[in-house]
Amino acid sequence: MAKKPLILVINDDGITAPGIRTLISIMNTIGEVVVVAPDSPQSAMGHAITVNSTLYVEKVTIDDGPQTEYSCSGTPADCVKLGVKEILKRKPDLCVSGINHGSNSSINVIYSGTMSAAVEAGMEGIPAIGFSLLDYNWNANFEHTRDFIKTITENTLKQGLPKGVVLNVNIPNVSKKDIKGIRICRQAMANWEEEFDKRKNPQGKNYYWLTGKFVNPDKGEDTDEWALANNYISIVPVQFDLTAHETIKHLNTWNFND
Amino acid sequence: MAKKPLILVINDDGITAPGIRTLISIMNTIGEVVVVAPDSPQSAMGHAITVNSTLYVEKVTIDDGPQTEYSCSGTPADCVKLGVKEILKRKPDLCVSGINHGSNSSINVIYSGTMSAAVEAGMEGIPAIGFSLLDYNWNANFEHTRDFIKTITENTLKQGLPKGVVLNVNIPNVSKKDIKGIRICRQAMANWEEEFDKRKNPQGKNYYWLTGKFVNPDKGEDTDEWALANNYISIVPVQFDLTAHETIKHLNTWNFND
Repeated sequence: MAKKPLILVINDDGITAPGIRTLISIMNTIGEVVVVAPDSPQSAMGHAITVNSTLYVEKVTIDDGPQTEYSCSGTPADCVKLGVKEILKRKPDLCVSGINHGSNSSINVIYSGTMSAAVEAGMEGIPAIGFSLLDYNWNANFEHTRDFIKTITENTLKQGLPKGVVLNVNIPNVSKKDIKGIRICRQAMANWEEEFDKRKNPQGKNYYWLTGKFVNPDKGEDTDEWALANNYISIVPVQFDLTAHETIKHLNTWNFND
Repeated sequence: MAKKPLILVINDDGITAPGIRTLISIMNTIGEVVVVAPDSPQSAMGHAITVNSTLYVEKVTIDDGPQTEYSCSGTPADCVKLGVKEILKRKPDLCVSGINHGSNSSINVIYSGTMSAAVEAGMEGIPAIGFSLLDYNWNANFEHTRDFIKTITENTLKQGLPKGVVLNVNIPNVSKKDIKGIRICRQAMANWEEEFDKRKNPQGKNYYWLTGKFVNPDKGEDTDEWALANNYISIVPVQFDLTAHETIKHLNTWNFND
């Protein structure tokens, strides 16, 4: 029998979140699992890393599964760095992040701690996938995601991923029988229209809560938003070369140096 | 005389950092300046936003310049959202971020609070530029950057930027006469080789500091790293559509749905 793949599991909702507990149990059916996850929720942390503060890591036992687990005081990206550089004895064959409680589709990829972990692993040359369920509730039902996540993971292990690319998988919050399949998509060019909820604290000082609504003017049927709205699981290949290569030629017409 | 452009100034080193003070004084020669900057350093915050906590904003006076200034408890991306949605009466003509104390070239763009502010502004449809000097010192000398920053800013105001693109400008830490000019570049495909410095706290518990060295196997002369090493100012056009469009076709061969 071939050696089991070594799988690093991360998330941003914290190591006790039902989403990562489901992901761990799925990964236990596929490979040897090591978990390095934040000790507290780290949502919307983007690609933050801890450079001016200390990091604590603790070996923990949370359930009776065969995985090895570490709880970490840092961000999702810190967890990947610690996992790869300090905890694991060899480079993992795969890194999976999630299952996030809530969508990371469209422009949300840029704020997502879940996806920053996948991207950080990708930067280390490790095939990586972020999984998110379109349900923000702590008690979301993840059961219907199991077979799909297993299929996507096994395909990724078998086929590998192109250099510089990780996968952003979002799963609709509908029953398993209503999921129509899996679609490869581009990120919809949608955005948030923020509003700030201005309040006064008990001392009379103004403060704000960030609120907002998601608006999607991008009606393309090749987008993740379209797929999710039509009960497909969306997979967007995500790159971390941020260069707008097409724009280089245009900017060279600017003649800065005259 | 044409109306002065409205310029939003942000950074990630905090509102009192010498880098942003220099940037404000340069922008005062170009337009009407409003500053919304973090009240404390926010380096390496990536694209973090504050969703589970309150935000405080305070009007402040730090020097005797004509700008209006607000100090904010949030991240650089929060500052942009607050500036655009709550503080400014109209959409700014430009957002500039920095001058960062330290490089944001190559892969550092992904961890950078400075660049997350520029990207956030770009997402709002505002032309945006992040400026960084290759000197991490608080007392770095920013004087030689003035004319170059003014030129790049005026060009951007005049020409605009393509939709979905912001500029990442890095400036070598050499005297003005040694700067050879400005080059439009791609992001070098370099990375950090992290090491964790493991220590014991006074209570005997292990903790870690993230350390590492930057390694650049990408020898292309069209990269920002090459430009900076050769005393050019680098400008990389940065996009926030993270879709690896080239990979979509490849992934469609995977046949998930069989």
